[in-house]
Amino acid sequence: MSMNENALSIFALGGLNEIGKNMYAIEYSNDIVIIDCGNKFPDESLLGIDLIIPDIAYLVENKDKVRALIVTHGHEDHIGGVPFFLKKLNVPVYATRFTLGLIEIKLKEHKLLRESDLVEINSNSTLKIGEMSVSFFKVTHSIPDCLGMVFHTPEGNIVHTGDFKFDLTPANNEHSDIHKMAEIGNEGVLLLLSESTNAERPGLTPSEQIVGEHVEAAFMKAEGKVIFSTFASNISRVQQVVNAAQKTNRKLVLLGRSMVKVIAVAMERGYLTVPGGMLIDPHEINEMAPERVAILCTGSQGEPLAALARLSTGNFRGVDILPKDTVIIAAGPIPGNERNVTSIVDNFFGLGANVIYGSGSTSGMHVSGHGYQEDLKLMLTLMKPKYFIPIHGEFRMLHHHRLLAESVGVEQGNTFIISNGDVIDIEHTIARHTRRIPVGNTYVDGGDVGNVGEIVLRDRKQLSEDGMLMIVLTMSKAEGKLISEPDTFSRGFVDRDFSELRSDVNRLTSKIVNELLEANRNSWNVMKKQIKKSIRQYVYTHTKKKPMIVPILIEI
Amino acid sequence: MSMNENALSIFALGGLNEIGKNMYAIEYSNDIVIIDCGNKFPDESLLGIDLIIPDIAYLVENKDKVRALIVTHGHEDHIGGVPFFLKKLNVPVYATRFTLGLIEIKLKEHKLLRESDLVEINSNSTLKIGEMSVSFFKVTHSIPDCLGMVFHTPEGNIVHTGDFKFDLTPANNEHSDIHKMAEIGNEGVLLLLSESTNAERPGLTPSEQIVGEHVEAAFMKAEGKVIFSTFASNISRVQQVVNAAQKTNRKLVLLGRSMVKVIAVAMERGYLTVPGGMLIDPHEINEMAPERVAILCTGSQGEPLAALARLSTGNFRGVDILPKDTVIIAAGPIPGNERNVTSIVDNFFGLGANVIYGSGSTSGMHVSGHGYQEDLKLMLTLMKPKYFIPIHGEFRMLHHHRLLAESVGVEQGNTFIISNGDVIDIEHTIARHTRRIPVGNTYVDGGDVGNVGEIVLRDRKQLSEDGMLMIVLTMSKAEGKLISEPDTFSRGFVDRDFSELRSDVNRLTSKIVNELLEANRNSWNVMKKQIKKSIRQYVYTHTKKKPMIVPILIEI
Repeated sequence: MSMNENALSIFALGGLNEIGKNMYAIEYSNDIVIIDCGNKFPDESLLGIDLIIPDIAYLVENKDKVRALIVTHGHEDHIGGVPFFLKKLNVPVYATRFTLGLIEIKLKEHKLLRESDLVEINSNSTLKIGEMSVSFFKVTHSIPDCLGMVFHTPEGNIVHTGDFKFDLTPANNEHSDIHKMAEIGNEGVLLLLSESTNAERPGLTPSEQIVGEHVEAAFMKAEGKVIFSTFASNISRVQQVVNAAQKTNRKLVLLGRSMVKVIAVAMERGYLTVPGGMLIDPHEINEMAPERVAILCTGSQGEPLAALARLSTGNFRGVDILPKDTVIIAAGPIPGNERNVTSIVDNFFGLGANVIYGSGSTSGMHVSGHGYQEDLKLMLTLMKPKYFIPIHGEFRMLHHHRLLAESVGVEQGNTFIISNGDVIDIEHTIARHTRRIPVGNTYVDGGDVGNVGEIVLRDRKQLSEDGMLMIVLTMSKAEGKLISEPDTFSRGFVDRDFSELRSDVNRLTSKIVNELLEANRNSWNVMKKQIKKSIRQYVYTHTKKKPMIVPILIEI
Repeated sequence: MSMNENALSIFALGGLNEIGKNMYAIEYSNDIVIIDCGNKFPDESLLGIDLIIPDIAYLVENKDKVRALIVTHGHEDHIGGVPFFLKKLNVPVYATRFTLGLIEIKLKEHKLLRESDLVEINSNSTLKIGEMSVSFFKVTHSIPDCLGMVFHTPEGNIVHTGDFKFDLTPANNEHSDIHKMAEIGNEGVLLLLSESTNAERPGLTPSEQIVGEHVEAAFMKAEGKVIFSTFASNISRVQQVVNAAQKTNRKLVLLGRSMVKVIAVAMERGYLTVPGGMLIDPHEINEMAPERVAILCTGSQGEPLAALARLSTGNFRGVDILPKDTVIIAAGPIPGNERNVTSIVDNFFGLGANVIYGSGSTSGMHVSGHGYQEDLKLMLTLMKPKYFIPIHGEFRMLHHHRLLAESVGVEQGNTFIISNGDVIDIEHTIARHTRRIPVGNTYVDGGDVGNVGEIVLRDRKQLSEDGMLMIVLTMSKAEGKLISEPDTFSRGFVDRDFSELRSDVNRLTSKIVNELLEANRNSWNVMKKQIKKSIRQYVYTHTKKKPMIVPILIEI
């Protein structure tokens, strides 16, 4: 794929013009290194799709070149595609201790753990891959143990930031390697890839410590139980909840499968400290005074099957919400999830609970893990790159990130706003965008990976809107004519009796078929087409609906 | 329905625990007066539904008592159900001049204008309905000509605020009747119904004039065309756009059916002044310098078929977006619409345009038409009601509105947070909530009004997720056995060839049927049940999918 044997190329298979399924590739000579392999959740237009993962057809074709998958951190949009990736390309996976813990949970679920080659690294590691070497630096984000990385290539150094903000007072005391970043910048950066999630937001991201103060105040004030919902992987926040529970003499209950699993990983690997005896089982709640209990649960995005939603409707067995309980939703709703979250808030208020919520940082219970404009400018300033590719964001975010880069000195024309599949080739330190590789989305639908495409989705869309009419024709193979009148069945069309329309459709179909047979036009394709056309028109005229029309031929 | 002949009752058929389809009723003795008849747009769970309108079954049963429909203002969530209502209950409709103009557009589309009885009122009107009389007061909102109203009943006065904020410097100089409201309060208010949309937001709603200042500044700065998108009915904002266009010497183009129709009504009826010769046709744009053109268009909520979305994808014939054009989206996205709006923003940035957008008031181009907490407290303070029903809002908004009422002196226990269908009866000035009338949602689906129910929606949901398998069995009526092997057809299931699974399903079905026939269990219901169960299980095991299984029997 490289233009010549010594060329350096950079491209993305996910993460550009979207939030989710991040996957970036650095290729030098005969070696390809992959950074991250995330997933993305489908919007409502992708009916029945469970998950979207990067389309790795190009990598599978170039299997022999793919050397490694390096993972920046353990969020779903960076690790959610790993099991699917390893099934096709079983290369070594490099990640930090905590990130590997989360990857292992996934590989166990996919029964892939044993055959996978997982290699623990830290910010002091160096990897040698072909003619490249890779070194790392710590960044702060909303999950422990995050890395940025430098690819030292014969053409120059490429920096990938991972997801980051500059939290100068991180709740877990794990600071960004700012001095190391400054050194990297001084050494010279040919190309920077930096994340763009909050490139539209002015200012500097608030510190996670602010959340700790609000959590403590809320726990102090709460008269009943405290139900705290956040992303399980935000271990710093979880630690602050644990601390507040300890200060107010509460036991802690974990609800939700991912909360239990992730916290187990964090405790085992030393990222979270929970006092002995603090964790209790859900069934013990009812034996305790409400003001002695705190619940940490999943579902802060309003997921209908997660713990928070079930608590809000009284459907979590053994755990009841009482008046005076305090519910805290510590998350900004991801666009598309607002309605689910607010309906949960409504339900909790309906049960008499006090609810602390609010988009973004208005409640004091959530701060973003992604740098705002000043954070992004600081990274650009530290790295002083010649070339810049804004990554990890929708188009308007990449656009704003470019303006930020120019404001701190990246030359106009040296920023590339590209799409997944676009390739930046660098030769003699000159970067160019002249070609692309084919890339799409891979849909996961039940056990199907990549087998559901446009036709099925279009059919599902039509079925979802007006349902369908099935018209069954029974014909004699020998005589080539209808054995009986066609019969029509419906699903998802109307609730009421449609017997009148049904006999009209049967009669009309019969007429069409008999006319075509008389005219000797007896191919099933011709008949099918004619039936679809006439019945569609007839049904629309009488009902203003457009159900899918499915003629079925049974020959006997 | 009244408990006795002289009782006063208040209830809602829409608007409580929801945003949309507002409809409230005041009943005294043998007279029912309806306030508003709105619609609501379905969320994505209501597959194929076009519109939701109030369920008026109760009113139709009590047809003889329904005297009038009074409309507070012309927004969709207050007038969108009017044509459907009048088809069943052709009572006089009372509304202001501008509101009637918008209702007439709807009635024309439904071919109902001629037989409808539309009566123009203004804030000085008084209506006499049975033993009630109704008077009005002006309120400011984001559409012209809005009314609140007072029902003078033998039991006492009931006030309904309509939608409002207190804009002390309204862009159209149409001020709230604050003095009249004070008089009403002094006269004594038994019960207040007040809207709750922004009951969660602290402070006072900013004035619409602020938007005018930002609009003018943006027009001054713009080097190319200005494309301004807002709700057509926000005539004050439209007037400010017209003024800015005039100041910067631009012609104005209207794009979008509702923009053209609503502006025609506003101009005809004297609510909007557009300088002669300013309006030009879309095809004239290309003859003019971009900096001489402004476009006012629909689609600020990201509606995929509206003008703004089509402009953003280059699909509006004859109108191209050029670099240096300025796009202004002057609206806060309604929850659920965020993704559509941001993808339009992305597209415009992709075309090189400058885009001014942002949720809420961050861009300066939008202020809410609904009062914040201080507005709501002012209304409560002016009216000094004995009883209070917060209306027009989801549960958490009603909840917060109750807290506001208590903070300004409404007695605890005198606020009723009720649902659609709950009835408040007032006798001897004591209000009680002891009963409800049955009420639901009426779904509009194409030409069907109220015929699509839970079964159809459940079917559509299943069809949308994994499609369907139809299994056709042809049996001999005479011999009671299969004539040929069953055959299976699919839609929305898988793209790839499923011939292997298909023959498995055919064979398995054949086996099930033959076994049942041998055991003399030949009822179709038994067979159908058994086929569904076994095939569902078989298909799930092999594909992890759950398509709808539809066995079809053809008897010959």
